[in-house]
Amino acid sequence: MSQTTKERVVIVGGGFGGLYTAQAMGNAPAAVTLIDRRNFHLFQPLLYQVATGGLSPEDIASPLRGVLKRQKNTRVLTGRVTDLDPARGVVRLEDGAEVGYDTLVVATGANHHYFGRDDEWQALAPGLKTIEDAVTIRRRVLLAFEAAERETDPQRRRALLTFVIVGGGPTGVELAGALGDLARHTLPGEFRGFDPAETRIILVEGLDRLLTAFPPDLSKAAARALAGLGVQVRTGVLVTDIAEDHVIVRDKAGQSTRIPTYTVLWGAGVRASSLGDVVAQRTGAEQDRVGRLIVGPALSLPGHANIFVIGDLAHYEQDGAPLPGVAQVAMQQGEFVADVLRRRRFGKAPLPFRYKDKGTLAVIGRHAAVADIGRLHFSGLPAWLIWVFVHINFLIEFDNKLKVMTQWGWNYVTRRQGARLITGETEPVWQQLPLAPQPPESPL
Amino acid sequence: MSQTTKERVVIVGGGFGGLYTAQAMGNAPAAVTLIDRRNFHLFQPLLYQVATGGLSPEDIASPLRGVLKRQKNTRVLTGRVTDLDPARGVVRLEDGAEVGYDTLVVATGANHHYFGRDDEWQALAPGLKTIEDAVTIRRRVLLAFEAAERETDPQRRRALLTFVIVGGGPTGVELAGALGDLARHTLPGEFRGFDPAETRIILVEGLDRLLTAFPPDLSKAAARALAGLGVQVRTGVLVTDIAEDHVIVRDKAGQSTRIPTYTVLWGAGVRASSLGDVVAQRTGAEQDRVGRLIVGPALSLPGHANIFVIGDLAHYEQDGAPLPGVAQVAMQQGEFVADVLRRRRFGKAPLPFRYKDKGTLAVIGRHAAVADIGRLHFSGLPAWLIWVFVHINFLIEFDNKLKVMTQWGWNYVTRRQGARLITGETEPVWQQLPLAPQPPESPL
Repeated sequence: MSQTTKERVVIVGGGFGGLYTAQAMGNAPAAVTLIDRRNFHLFQPLLYQVATGGLSPEDIASPLRGVLKRQKNTRVLTGRVTDLDPARGVVRLEDGAEVGYDTLVVATGANHHYFGRDDEWQALAPGLKTIEDAVTIRRRVLLAFEAAERETDPQRRRALLTFVIVGGGPTGVELAGALGDLARHTLPGEFRGFDPAETRIILVEGLDRLLTAFPPDLSKAAARALAGLGVQVRTGVLVTDIAEDHVIVRDKAGQSTRIPTYTVLWGAGVRASSLGDVVAQRTGAEQDRVGRLIVGPALSLPGHANIFVIGDLAHYEQDGAPLPGVAQVAMQQGEFVADVLRRRRFGKAPLPFRYKDKGTLAVIGRHAAVADIGRLHFSGLPAWLIWVFVHINFLIEFDNKLKVMTQWGWNYVTRRQGARLITGETEPVWQQLPLAPQPPESPL
Repeated sequence: MSQTTKERVVIVGGGFGGLYTAQAMGNAPAAVTLIDRRNFHLFQPLLYQVATGGLSPEDIASPLRGVLKRQKNTRVLTGRVTDLDPARGVVRLEDGAEVGYDTLVVATGANHHYFGRDDEWQALAPGLKTIEDAVTIRRRVLLAFEAAERETDPQRRRALLTFVIVGGGPTGVELAGALGDLARHTLPGEFRGFDPAETRIILVEGLDRLLTAFPPDLSKAAARALAGLGVQVRTGVLVTDIAEDHVIVRDKAGQSTRIPTYTVLWGAGVRASSLGDVVAQRTGAEQDRVGRLIVGPALSLPGHANIFVIGDLAHYEQDGAPLPGVAQVAMQQGEFVADVLRRRRFGKAPLPFRYKDKGTLAVIGRHAAVADIGRLHFSGLPAWLIWVFVHINFLIEFDNKLKVMTQWGWNYVTRRQGARLITGETEPVWQQLPLAPQPPESPL
């Protein structure tokens, strides 16, 4: 069979959804093309460890070409898909080049979302989706400690040592825990101008409890574990303003408080990636309120049986609720799409997709986690051990597994974190600020 | 003895010179302050491995605070020293803050130097001095291969797959060898649109042989080893122009040739860092033609017995020639300065500094190196084994040694290089270029 008569499958996005689709098609009689803006697959669940200096970017990323090297039916293209034409069966790249498809799998995930205040807040409160985001957070956190070492005014120093994390989901909880660990266990002894125990980490969540995707007893366990790392958890509190040197939060009673800080991290909202809007426009597919495309039982778009949408970009309801934006869902959907295509080749109709929830995990510092596995709830050290096992096991390449194990083992024994480099040229906004007097936290 | 009566020693720069000074003063009755723009010590001799995807930045950098944590007489400040006042005994940081000293050690090293064409060539031909330089080179090299995968015009593809390295010193030779290794051993099998064996790596050197700091037989051995990795070595050739899509070189007969390429790497000239000019102005010290400060036998500036200059920033003649800008010199000078200060405390005069050359090494790819050790010359695998031993042994922290050994072992066995990430947002210039037709290499 010649190349041209093979089914051309184009996968856009090399995250969990796209990569698992490609890998599941390794032996298929198809010409597979995986297109991603980046040349690597990123293991996003460990990104918070890069942001807090525990791992290096290279530890949690694998070059896509390396991963798919032996899969001879697959080619990898680096480029940004900006448009598609379903009538002609082509996707268009930013530079105008076109790639033809018979079947298209869109898996470009989600980005940060600042509830309509993207323009103002994005630069002030970095989120955590990309390697660059993680390196930005790492730089800003470490620079705040460096500035505190040189600061003589106690109130400015207090503001430099105050870190506000917005959003009590897994990202916010994991960032807060890792920062608490950094301040409590790694930094002591390294500074002469202040005691790292002065560090204040404030985790702000609008709803009544942390980790609302978990059962309430695990939310409580997470809050306890965070408190043990010195993290102040403030639930039922909304962020109403972010500025270069403070945030303003409002509690349920309507009381606003000004918290002086130079470092605000964003773990609150996500929105479907912008390619989703283009796909909706070109196919007439419906989107939910965060821009995800509503897919049918085969994960394809209504009226377009050859266009699949999976992962964080897809809205698929199961048992009356949309599936969560987690790696497990994307992986299972990727494998499911490969199976739909296989069944199709044999003239069989697809079965409806069904997500098998293998459990949900969130880690808090170096010793604790929460795990919700079927009817079993774990917290503390047992949950942490499950978390370590699962995360090392799912790293894509053996290379990374080995390095991450080495690094974690070393960090664990020595309490050091060797990846604490301040890199990149962009300075934080407060370095350009006049040294204004900084009042303490105060109600408004 | 109270803090204020201790000798205040300020060290500017956390490279080999500065860090070795600080470490050698670990038990001295002094208040030591180490100031660096960056928060880490960089193991520069392995930077070319970051530039070619073999190691991650975190593998070859150690946070200075971590390294000096247990040294209670030492504090680390992150900041850029821009000026000094020898009369008052203070250095001034960029933000205006001042740090007072009794003794000052300046060890800020050297930067790239484009022979008067800095403004035009710097953006076109990145050098290799910082982590950001290495990541820039890595991005540009990998993006060129990515663009070649999508390029259909054979001449443009050939230009994308042509890499020109300017300068046949250790940096140029090591970069060329690592690139040859990447193209020959790592990339094959990963691309569908071209054969990585088409890659052309051209190493241009103005003098008659490579590695002029080595004896001629080792220059020959290096050229042979490079040829084995497919590197074209062109000696006696000067670069007369660099543009976005070509370089122009001129040979000794005056013949100019246009080489189409989108990737030019700079390993040719270095110049003393700019703080050297300020120090010269403020102290009246003499500079050599590349801006290095001429120091006396105790490595201090004439007329300023309490201002020492060491490492790449210093010009110190021994046996009629200035010492080379290598890590060994800086390390020995750092330890020597600590000894001068110790002798001074006991009222003893300093001995003149004398560099003990323990040998010079340059590595070429994965199996070969050249080593000039006293009267012994090694090349090929034996030199490579010496190189591996020396470089792992000198990595500052045990943590890094372990990681680099793991990574090298893994790379060696699998021929993979896991750190091949394209990161950072800046796109190479040629991505904005119109797709002009690209003629082949041609005499002018």
